[in-house]
Amino acid sequence: MNESGIQWVVGVDAGGTRTRARLAEAAGGRVLGEGAGGPGNALSVPPDALARHLAEALRGALPPGGGSVAAVLGGFAGGGPGGGRERAHAALTAALDLVGVRAGRVEVRGDADVAFAAGTGTPADGLVLIAGTGAAAARVAGRRAVRAADGDGWLLGDAGSGFWLGREALRAVLRALDGRGPATALTGPVAALCGGLTKEHVVRYAYAAEPVRLAALSPLVVEAAAGGDEVASALLDEAAAELAATVTALAPRPGEPLVVTGGLLGPGGPLLPRLRARVAPLGLVPDPVRDGLAGAVALARLGV
Amino acid sequence: MNESGIQWVVGVDAGGTRTRARLAEAAGGRVLGEGAGGPGNALSVPPDALARHLAEALRGALPPGGGSVAAVLGGFAGGGPGGGRERAHAALTAALDLVGVRAGRVEVRGDADVAFAAGTGTPADGLVLIAGTGAAAARVAGRRAVRAADGDGWLLGDAGSGFWLGREALRAVLRALDGRGPATALTGPVAALCGGLTKEHVVRYAYAAEPVRLAALSPLVVEAAAGGDEVASALLDEAAAELAATVTALAPRPGEPLVVTGGLLGPGGPLLPRLRARVAPLGLVPDPVRDGLAGAVALARLGV
Repeated sequence: MNESGIQWVVGVDAGGTRTRARLAEAAGGRVLGEGAGGPGNALSVPPDALARHLAEALRGALPPGGGSVAAVLGGFAGGGPGGGRERAHAALTAALDLVGVRAGRVEVRGDADVAFAAGTGTPADGLVLIAGTGAAAARVAGRRAVRAADGDGWLLGDAGSGFWLGREALRAVLRALDGRGPATALTGPVAALCGGLTKEHVVRYAYAAEPVRLAALSPLVVEAAAGGDEVASALLDEAAAELAATVTALAPRPGEPLVVTGGLLGPGGPLLPRLRARVAPLGLVPDPVRDGLAGAVALARLGV
Repeated sequence: MNESGIQWVVGVDAGGTRTRARLAEAAGGRVLGEGAGGPGNALSVPPDALARHLAEALRGALPPGGGSVAAVLGGFAGGGPGGGRERAHAALTAALDLVGVRAGRVEVRGDADVAFAAGTGTPADGLVLIAGTGAAAARVAGRRAVRAADGDGWLLGDAGSGFWLGREALRAVLRALDGRGPATALTGPVAALCGGLTKEHVVRYAYAAEPVRLAALSPLVVEAAAGGDEVASALLDEAAAELAATVTALAPRPGEPLVVTGGLLGPGGPLLPRLRARVAPLGLVPDPVRDGLAGAVALARLGV
């Protein structure tokens, strides 16, 4: 940050699991530093912790002592309008103070904006679909999400998400155990996890802690399906169908960009082939990105 | 209880919402008293409160000062083997002490046992289906539940229950709002309940408190369906189909008893006509009962 005449920007991707920050040249393509910190959901992480996690990520990305940057743009899970946008802005400003960064401009966006902007060629208009612990899609116009589908959380929606797959895995095992459904290879690994092979074991395990942690079971479904289990394969098919339905609700136009991300749909993600097949008839080709960090940097650059 | 030579029994039906007790003649059909108290789920109500709620119900049923009875039989939600049977027994014994009742025998059963025994003619073998806040079915043999289906709770099951209907009502409104589903007359009453007509209002309402309270929304679905709303009607159809599938998992035999109870399936219950149509092809005719109180008394009498 000591090269005279060169302007720098910072992009931040603040997700439900962790926060990442990247320092990059405003005009060229150079990346100077990168850092990571704790969870960054603007709605569920308390303000003090949010500022601390952001500062952690910024410290890793910036040279010791901080400095001046032209723009900082943060994309926050839960950071949409009507959501935690103001909380996110306050926390990001506080974090910049903590690490000694002076910013010409500080901007907050929702996670859909930065995920979409991370797509090939930094597209301005199209669709973005995020499927990790949760699941949500948005239509983006002029680099901003203008309409959302699903993203309703584990209790009401997030159809096809990691939580959804984990919960359905437990349900499939319960149905196999009481005769409502067919036998499944999921029973073995689920029984190992729950400490026993009865409905009581599975039920006790499920209600013992936060429901959303069931997302951690989604790899069991992927493994069982890879091993030929039909029940697990059907769950992956159903998840992909739900995600495609979420995209379909946004009235897709053939050929428009569809950026996809999250643990299930990022590069090499387990639902990516199935989603690709589901959206091909709509004239859509998924463009998988690892996260929204590159998009946050791209949007920061655009404003400079 | 002062008629010499006459033996009395007490039946208790301890459900998730309230506890009821009835004092009746052991040999004849006479009922001497009835009382009610707070929630009686053996797993979710703390031991002290459970004993207090049972004592409330017993006080209403028994003459002041208590007395001697031949048998007390309590049917408890969450009182099955492997569940809260021991907790229920300890609380019932403590409650009898509190109200000054000496019992020749104190027995605890699960709620399925007493609900089934409340059926016409106090049947010994058959099926019972409970659909209130939750949903569960059991096969009963020799007056005891020997196999269960569903009853997996709001997170994993209770398909077709009051909670299930309430949650599906919110989901249907969210799907109507973001374009994933058709318009529905449920939107108006749900918006009134949630304080506004956006996805954010509905989501905030749903996550603001215990999920299971969404069971209170099930009457909205019944009303909307009665008013001709197709989405609401489809939800009631689906609920009945889920409940019929739960019964089907127990391998029903044509002509055997099917006792049904709970807010959705008791006498005049809103799902009763739909369930009747669904199980007719299986050779089953639902026998609706108000609750398990009469069954608890019947089982108490049988042991005397």
